[in-house]
Amino acid sequence: MKPNYHYKNVAETYLFSNIAKKVAAYTAANPDKKVLRLGIGDVTLPLAPAVIAAMHEAVDEMGKAESFKGYGPEQGYGFLRESIQSYYARRGVTLAADEIFVSDGAKSDCGNILDIFDKDNAVLVPDPVYPVYVDTNVMAGRNIAYMQATAENGFLPMPDETVKADIIYLCSPNNPTGAAYTKAQLKAWVDFAIANNAVILYDAAYEAFVADGAARSIFEVEGARKCAIELCSFSKTAGFTGTRCGYTVVPCELEFDGMNLRKMWLRRQTTKFNGVSYVVQKGAAAVFSEEGEKQIAQNLAYYRKNAEKIAACMDECGIAYTGGKNSPYIWLQCPCGMTSWEFFDYLLENAQVVGTPGSGFGKNGEGYFRLTAFGSHETTDEACNRIKNLLKK
Amino acid sequence: MKPNYHYKNVAETYLFSNIAKKVAAYTAANPDKKVLRLGIGDVTLPLAPAVIAAMHEAVDEMGKAESFKGYGPEQGYGFLRESIQSYYARRGVTLAADEIFVSDGAKSDCGNILDIFDKDNAVLVPDPVYPVYVDTNVMAGRNIAYMQATAENGFLPMPDETVKADIIYLCSPNNPTGAAYTKAQLKAWVDFAIANNAVILYDAAYEAFVADGAARSIFEVEGARKCAIELCSFSKTAGFTGTRCGYTVVPCELEFDGMNLRKMWLRRQTTKFNGVSYVVQKGAAAVFSEEGEKQIAQNLAYYRKNAEKIAACMDECGIAYTGGKNSPYIWLQCPCGMTSWEFFDYLLENAQVVGTPGSGFGKNGEGYFRLTAFGSHETTDEACNRIKNLLKK
Repeated sequence: MKPNYHYKNVAETYLFSNIAKKVAAYTAANPDKKVLRLGIGDVTLPLAPAVIAAMHEAVDEMGKAESFKGYGPEQGYGFLRESIQSYYARRGVTLAADEIFVSDGAKSDCGNILDIFDKDNAVLVPDPVYPVYVDTNVMAGRNIAYMQATAENGFLPMPDETVKADIIYLCSPNNPTGAAYTKAQLKAWVDFAIANNAVILYDAAYEAFVADGAARSIFEVEGARKCAIELCSFSKTAGFTGTRCGYTVVPCELEFDGMNLRKMWLRRQTTKFNGVSYVVQKGAAAVFSEEGEKQIAQNLAYYRKNAEKIAACMDECGIAYTGGKNSPYIWLQCPCGMTSWEFFDYLLENAQVVGTPGSGFGKNGEGYFRLTAFGSHETTDEACNRIKNLLKK
Repeated sequence: MKPNYHYKNVAETYLFSNIAKKVAAYTAANPDKKVLRLGIGDVTLPLAPAVIAAMHEAVDEMGKAESFKGYGPEQGYGFLRESIQSYYARRGVTLAADEIFVSDGAKSDCGNILDIFDKDNAVLVPDPVYPVYVDTNVMAGRNIAYMQATAENGFLPMPDETVKADIIYLCSPNNPTGAAYTKAQLKAWVDFAIANNAVILYDAAYEAFVADGAARSIFEVEGARKCAIELCSFSKTAGFTGTRCGYTVVPCELEFDGMNLRKMWLRRQTTKFNGVSYVVQKGAAAVFSEEGEKQIAQNLAYYRKNAEKIAACMDECGIAYTGGKNSPYIWLQCPCGMTSWEFFDYLLENAQVVGTPGSGFGKNGEGYFRLTAFGSHETTDEACNRIKNLLKK
């Protein structure tokens, strides 16, 4: 048997294990110092009461013969797909329920969607980037080109007519930079994709954080139905990182070489997937209930407040950054020309604050650093105070 | 963008939609007749009380900040992997916890595991067969050879030295035939795989139904750690078809061309998967608690009783069959030389009993028919009476 040799080319990622090692070593040497973590991308607030109630109810249903649920539709129950459909409709985006595919999370879909594409496609990803876009394509043996996301373009690269691209990854609001495209900017990408017969994989996992009129869905843009697939998630919107639910939108119009991508994805999912747990789907649908939306809005406001605190701290310190406004991430330029890891060490040793070195996300991340708004108010306040004491000029 | 052209070669399956159409037409024409369904492979008993209690507890944990769970390990929580490890240990099979990968179900793993194999491998599947084995490989462009499962070999094909095979699918107890390999038979497969540098994908989804000393895990067989991956599920064992949890065992020893399959699968899962819902994992772990095991044993006994009833009915009618003993499936030879669909129509029209035509599972299924033990005692009794009235000589 021949194994998939492309796996040899997947880079080992030591980013988070290196962080953990450094923090462990510091803590061992300084047991009296309290380390504050603003590095992780995981949420901390519990699930909303409406979600909890819906999940309890669903668990009860599973315990009684008359309401027990066996195999459900692979693409998700109608009740959840219709909730998602309404969620889009309230933002002016019209989708058919059968264009929405419920899954166990955007990370799964992000990997699995590549199934419906030929190996021989040119892939274009931004640098810095969520490493999953790169690794999943390397595993399939595809060639990857990078578009440069830098301070010069506000970390929002625009189309380059000289670059060949069949599959284009856009993530907005962006992980790790927090930058968010406007509709006008996305329109340029949609036009480029259509002109080049390319497909856009649009990662909207952080759309719920959009506050200032940036785009929340690529389907707000005319023409996107002819070239784009959108991946989204309940993880950051509703704290589902450990509950696992996401969805992918594949418009009916998407056709390449006479093959319809929605039908291909349906075939992929019905063949290699058996749907999301009924209990989880009931919880996810509750996110979009009137009560659920109010509770979720409070949680998002809580994290946004943290983002504002960190952004204000950066302003006070005179440190340049993106994000913090439409995003739970603050992407800052390391002061005094430090490299990402130098600043990591500096911040850990002098303020006992842990963040994520930007160089872990690609070469353009060197000299940058990511802080996240997913902690508690108390941790965020204390971390900001320590950073100000250390860095305020 | 070039789509995956191999999708054009995936056969459309009309099996279950044709069944649904025929039943709907019959019901419309005969509204007074009560149709009994013994066709589906889905369970009907609710989740066990121990599972329900564990899930409620986990939902409560998710609702409180101090016990909330965010991202968990992609390969499953230690508590669940250790439960599965003990479940195997009680049957005399020693596994390391990090050889066990928890997933959202065996169907997902069955599709996703192909990721770690090169496209250029010869695939060997039995006929008749669970269609997912075939379709997932066609999607990847692999060549498939079939081994013949017939009445002559008791629907348990054995190795053929003249057939080239790199990836070998074995499903035991088998879907759809209900036949189960003995350890001695599996030893022949393990020896063949090792001699031919092949990997065995062993689908053990129905292992909990084994009663007569047939093998429950391929790892009961010496040498299997050098050539086999085992896929298993809570679906049929504990009624998790709508709750979604399964697991795959990849032994440390599995190496091909210097590449370690366990490490590759770990890399695949950490890159393209984000773990199973915490609530579901807590429910799954409760299956293996002392209380849970007792309750699950009762459910399995309930289904086994149905299988015995159907088997006894076949005996009384003088119809040849396999399964019913180590399996929830009864695979019977259609009487009077009828084709699978002729018998389907005959049974529907004359006894109002619905089963699954064997021809839907491959060419060797022609002339055969599958009945399942997942109904209620009442439905099963009534269906058996009707079949006896119709077919008893």
